[in-house]
Amino acid sequence: MPKAATRPVVLTGDRTTGSLHLGHYVGSLKSRLVLQEDHRQFLLLADAQALTDNGDDPARIRRNVIEVALDYLAVGIDPEKSVICVQSCLPALAELTMLYMNFVTVSRLERNPTVKQEIVQRGFQRDIPAGFLCYPVSQAADITAFKAGLVPVGEDQLPMIEQSNEIARRINRHVGRELLPEAGALVSCVGRLPGIDGRSKMSKSAGNAIPLSATPAEISAAVQAMFTDPGHLRVSDPGRVEGNVVFTYLDAFDGSPDLADLKAHYRRGGLGDTVLKKRLDACLQALLAPIRERRAAFAKQPDFVMDVVRAGTARAAVLTQQTLDEVRAALGLFSFGGG
Amino acid sequence: MPKAATRPVVLTGDRTTGSLHLGHYVGSLKSRLVLQEDHRQFLLLADAQALTDNGDDPARIRRNVIEVALDYLAVGIDPEKSVICVQSCLPALAELTMLYMNFVTVSRLERNPTVKQEIVQRGFQRDIPAGFLCYPVSQAADITAFKAGLVPVGEDQLPMIEQSNEIARRINRHVGRELLPEAGALVSCVGRLPGIDGRSKMSKSAGNAIPLSATPAEISAAVQAMFTDPGHLRVSDPGRVEGNVVFTYLDAFDGSPDLADLKAHYRRGGLGDTVLKKRLDACLQALLAPIRERRAAFAKQPDFVMDVVRAGTARAAVLTQQTLDEVRAALGLFSFGGG
Repeated sequence: MPKAATRPVVLTGDRTTGSLHLGHYVGSLKSRLVLQEDHRQFLLLADAQALTDNGDDPARIRRNVIEVALDYLAVGIDPEKSVICVQSCLPALAELTMLYMNFVTVSRLERNPTVKQEIVQRGFQRDIPAGFLCYPVSQAADITAFKAGLVPVGEDQLPMIEQSNEIARRINRHVGRELLPEAGALVSCVGRLPGIDGRSKMSKSAGNAIPLSATPAEISAAVQAMFTDPGHLRVSDPGRVEGNVVFTYLDAFDGSPDLADLKAHYRRGGLGDTVLKKRLDACLQALLAPIRERRAAFAKQPDFVMDVVRAGTARAAVLTQQTLDEVRAALGLFSFGGG
Repeated sequence: MPKAATRPVVLTGDRTTGSLHLGHYVGSLKSRLVLQEDHRQFLLLADAQALTDNGDDPARIRRNVIEVALDYLAVGIDPEKSVICVQSCLPALAELTMLYMNFVTVSRLERNPTVKQEIVQRGFQRDIPAGFLCYPVSQAADITAFKAGLVPVGEDQLPMIEQSNEIARRINRHVGRELLPEAGALVSCVGRLPGIDGRSKMSKSAGNAIPLSATPAEISAAVQAMFTDPGHLRVSDPGRVEGNVVFTYLDAFDGSPDLADLKAHYRRGGLGDTVLKKRLDACLQALLAPIRERRAAFAKQPDFVMDVVRAGTARAAVLTQQTLDEVRAALGLFSFGGG
């Protein structure tokens, strides 16, 4: 593929902490299906990064490498178009991280807003694992190793791209040329999908997520349990649309032109939650049925899935090793070739 | 060599910040000559660690990889008995470091007395490179990757061994068996050799060192410039032995039984610095002449030296990769082999 070299490189991926859910679908998977058509897209199964805050449960992280790969294939990621690879099987990433760690100060890492926020979320306080503090450096290694021009992120992850570009600039300044490209952030315009309980974020651990592999009954149960408007007691009562998870999901997954009318009707009163939920249920069943079926089909071919991930990791290994070699040579590290 | 496997493993080495001097000879090289006779000794040319506080000058670090290897060969390190290898050419060390960083907290690293002291010495204050803060983790990776049972250290480096053993214990506890041996510290009983100016430490950067490659004229000039007793103005004056660098060096390098008499004579008065310095000069010339000659001879065979280092690094690569594979498997990381 001679044209491949000129297509912009996108790096994205997921921590392998659990299988993916509807939040991932809306937030990232959907756009990856578009991106893979005219970009060189690398999907990193970020098991090493997942270990920085799950050091006590590596078995879960390992198991989910293949689960997430299955999710990718299930939603339509095409291994001919996107490269699926395992982070911890790419030694060049660890080596680049170690080199970059000499170009970032501890206080700079401590000031990273994303890290700061996540330290609070995870309740680490003073017991932050060193790997967690340094994970922005590891991300910079990922981004630059693939020479990614574009990294899809949520708004809260922007400081990570900034940190990566800062390191790239420091290295470039140090070696006197544009060795490492800076990455642009592709900020998702889709807001985060709330959990079915209306809490801020859909997450498996909070038990408020609809996994991509959910059965029809699980989907229906989740929709039934969904948070609407606690003040909307009778059908005839006026209802609130804002903060009503069913409407948020309809916005995200239905998107029909008559949604505006539906919202107006709900606000006026006279539209019951049951009607709404039926509509959402049908919509989610239609979305997830083919994904679930493809997932089940791929799950029956573990050798094929393993081969996809193996081949992707081998391609990524060549590319990342090449970048490492370039960085080592440019910084003037020892080599047996050049002495 | 079936016996090799039962010989205790020693890991030692040097940051490749400059070629070695008499301080290294007394402090470590001499004992390595003994250790290599009945240990499996690995000498790590620690260029990656040197970069943690010399990130701005990688060219110097690179150059000195071969300079230090030359010093090793010059003093009599036998590549048939000791393995000389380059740290930055062993990817397993970077990968182990990354894994271990999840088992050490930032505050634990900040409490490390050696790191604390070195932060002050290097004037880093708040601008500590992340790589520098984490270098005890990198040392733990070195020590455990070679499964070293014995690590020769100065007393000020004891916290490093402690940190390494702490990580080994955490990993062992985590995996439920003695995967990584704890290392014993072989504390040098020789005090640090002062610089010729009487300052605490001989170092190339302080300009108070006698390099192993010093010419006869350089040795003599260094001995001439050596700090003695500033109060010892006339030969007949009583002189101080304590803090008198010439005596410190005679203790370290001469060691004849009549040194005690010489000291007594100096203390009484009547013994001139010139006599002392002549004696030390002769002693150092005799010590350094064969080292300098062997060094010059090896320097004329750069291919041989490169081959020694290449072969040593290849051996070390096999060993360290094996440990990495064991750690990954024991922690349950993803692998294409076992799934």
